[in-house]
Amino acid sequence: MENNKKKFMLRAIELSLISVNEQGGPFGCVIVKNDNIIAEGSNQVTRNNDPTAHAEIVTIRNACKNLNTFDLKGTEMFTSCEPCPMCLSAIYWAHIDKIYYGNTRVDAAKIGFDDNFIYDELVLDINKRKIPLEQINQKEAIVAFNNWDLKLDKIKY
Amino acid sequence: MENNKKKFMLRAIELSLISVNEQGGPFGCVIVKNDNIIAEGSNQVTRNNDPTAHAEIVTIRNACKNLNTFDLKGTEMFTSCEPCPMCLSAIYWAHIDKIYYGNTRVDAAKIGFDDNFIYDELVLDINKRKIPLEQINQKEAIVAFNNWDLKLDKIKY
Repeated sequence: MENNKKKFMLRAIELSLISVNEQGGPFGCVIVKNDNIIAEGSNQVTRNNDPTAHAEIVTIRNACKNLNTFDLKGTEMFTSCEPCPMCLSAIYWAHIDKIYYGNTRVDAAKIGFDDNFIYDELVLDINKRKIPLEQINQKEAIVAFNNWDLKLDKIKY
Repeated sequence: MENNKKKFMLRAIELSLISVNEQGGPFGCVIVKNDNIIAEGSNQVTRNNDPTAHAEIVTIRNACKNLNTFDLKGTEMFTSCEPCPMCLSAIYWAHIDKIYYGNTRVDAAKIGFDDNFIYDELVLDINKRKIPLEQINQKEAIVAFNNWDLKLDKIKY
């Protein structure tokens, strides 16, 4: 297993190197189940005009497509860098079992990717964040929640 | 503008209601630029087998596709519920100017969507989280970062 861990991470790193050569961000990722790679991905933000297309998000989408599920319990992620808060949250929503990472958020900050700024913003009071948030029309918005709550055949996730 | 704010939020809420009827999660969203809706979206997690397909992420992707950019500076988001940490981080990466929301994370928790659990996890030390993280092969991983750093024609994002 130790050998396999290295093999999977080196593949994630290879994908990060290929991405740089192809004008993408320097991030690669694989997801593994039962000691096999079941999905791969790399950063597609600038290539696909999609700010959400970090390597981990791309790989989660690919894994879910390949396994035909929205629940990745029983899988492990190997990512070339510690996940940003968006990707870490996505990993929680996807129920991945464990994360192996290569570079840290400090390494990422040194080359201009400021994940720490977002980590810091998330814990601030809602009225102290750089991007302002304003609540309106809750009375109307709650109706969909009530409908969901009362729905007997809903698909939970 | 006050009237328009209400109009945009009511459309986001309408999308959340439609989503419940179509077996999706109870969340809807629109993105507005120059007082016009330029993208819409609703929760597609179970319909598309994509745990990242929250209403806000879907709408950011649609907006970027429609505007042919990965930078949504100059836009505002109207979302039927306070964004979860994944979506809030995506909003930061996308550089959206302002967020209007209807329901709160407390409302979401009451119907089974536990955003707060993820908010709490994000601020924990990396070795105290429910999903374990383990660093391996940093020496190899850093090479892609060095390549990126030295690349003269990189597209920053």
